[in-house]
Amino acid sequence: MHYQLYYWPTIQGRGEYVRLALEEAGAGYTDVARRGHGMGAMSKMLEVEKGTPPFAPPFLKAGKLVIGQTANILLYLGSRHGLAPKAEAGKLWVHQLQLTISDLVLEVHDTHHPLGPSLYYEDQKAPAKKRTEEFWDSRVPKYLGYFEDLLAANGGSYITGRRLTYVDLSLFQIVEGLRYAFPKRMKAFEMEIPGLVGLRDRIAARPNIKAYLASDRRIAFNEDGIFRRYKALDG
Amino acid sequence: MHYQLYYWPTIQGRGEYVRLALEEAGAGYTDVARRGHGMGAMSKMLEVEKGTPPFAPPFLKAGKLVIGQTANILLYLGSRHGLAPKAEAGKLWVHQLQLTISDLVLEVHDTHHPLGPSLYYEDQKAPAKKRTEEFWDSRVPKYLGYFEDLLAANGGSYITGRRLTYVDLSLFQIVEGLRYAFPKRMKAFEMEIPGLVGLRDRIAARPNIKAYLASDRRIAFNEDGIFRRYKALDG
Repeated sequence: MHYQLYYWPTIQGRGEYVRLALEEAGAGYTDVARRGHGMGAMSKMLEVEKGTPPFAPPFLKAGKLVIGQTANILLYLGSRHGLAPKAEAGKLWVHQLQLTISDLVLEVHDTHHPLGPSLYYEDQKAPAKKRTEEFWDSRVPKYLGYFEDLLAANGGSYITGRRLTYVDLSLFQIVEGLRYAFPKRMKAFEMEIPGLVGLRDRIAARPNIKAYLASDRRIAFNEDGIFRRYKALDG
Repeated sequence: MHYQLYYWPTIQGRGEYVRLALEEAGAGYTDVARRGHGMGAMSKMLEVEKGTPPFAPPFLKAGKLVIGQTANILLYLGSRHGLAPKAEAGKLWVHQLQLTISDLVLEVHDTHHPLGPSLYYEDQKAPAKKRTEEFWDSRVPKYLGYFEDLLAANGGSYITGRRLTYVDLSLFQIVEGLRYAFPKRMKAFEMEIPGLVGLRDRIAARPNIKAYLASDRRIAFNEDGIFRRYKALDG
């Protein structure tokens, strides 16, 4: 099956969790909006007329299916490409972890957009600073502490045990993103999460991921995405 | 199967989407933390030692399974209790809609907590006011407009067509919650969403839901939940 991924063409954003899964799986896909006329095609898919229009990108076209919501796309891809257990209990558990990562990603976004997604960062710098303090004081330790403990409790290799899942790929992206957006804060925090840092290194060294990261299919981090480097927010 | 639902005992919150599904299905369940010693039992389940500890309530115990994340719990319950299609495509579609509702619920929470969940509302009143303006100017029309259009495109009875799903129950809760938290704003907005208001009425009239809403199992809205009535935020 050759997939069509629909996502904003100039950012990693939420689409990146899907790209990493497709790349690790060696799946064939077209990153539609990065091609000519791709943005128009994406807009057309979002119109509510009939069928199953997504609310927002990313969404994946898989044959006749159109699947929206990042974690839902990974739920679909996971068992098809060996990135999640096939049995229901394991599938639900891995999906649950991914939904917790979705919550974290939203909180990352809120560090620079506490007053909402429709206003510019420049119009909410002071609240962004406050929200970021709270994020690093309380939320990062809670989320990453949870995943660090899980990793240790399950043997230290991958988050659910001895087999890689799409959650491990997403945790790689979380570590990379926090390093990009908050280099000073993250440097100080990394000693709290040696397991996750090791996981990040193992994921980065996997052949398909390594090739992807070195390719122009990997969009660079920038200040339009979820993880943004604003000096004022980095301590 | 008799379920154990674990959620905060004094609020509707995210647990309410699960309660509504269990009630509509006529499923047997214990709302654990509302019983004596229930809070202690819930805390114990959140400890990361082994197995599949949830990150946060709500979570559902179903035999040996422990399932966390609201939308994931509904994914599990949906096909078992006739509240979602059994076939994969329909299941993913309904789940996708529920995940979009989860995003909306988070934005509702952010109206009174734009600087993050660890600070009190009283310490973020001015940013809350700004965030709420943006929520009503831009986000509510986008989310509810999407669901209103979907409902119309699919015949007007239920969000995915002629059969009730857990998404319809959740949309009932969204309308109820917005009416509670923002009575003035919602009153003015309801003319934009006649379909959803009609859906709300049909859900409220279903025998199991009607009995539930009249029982003491339904916790009243209050200012510790997701939907909070703060006069300063209501226009």
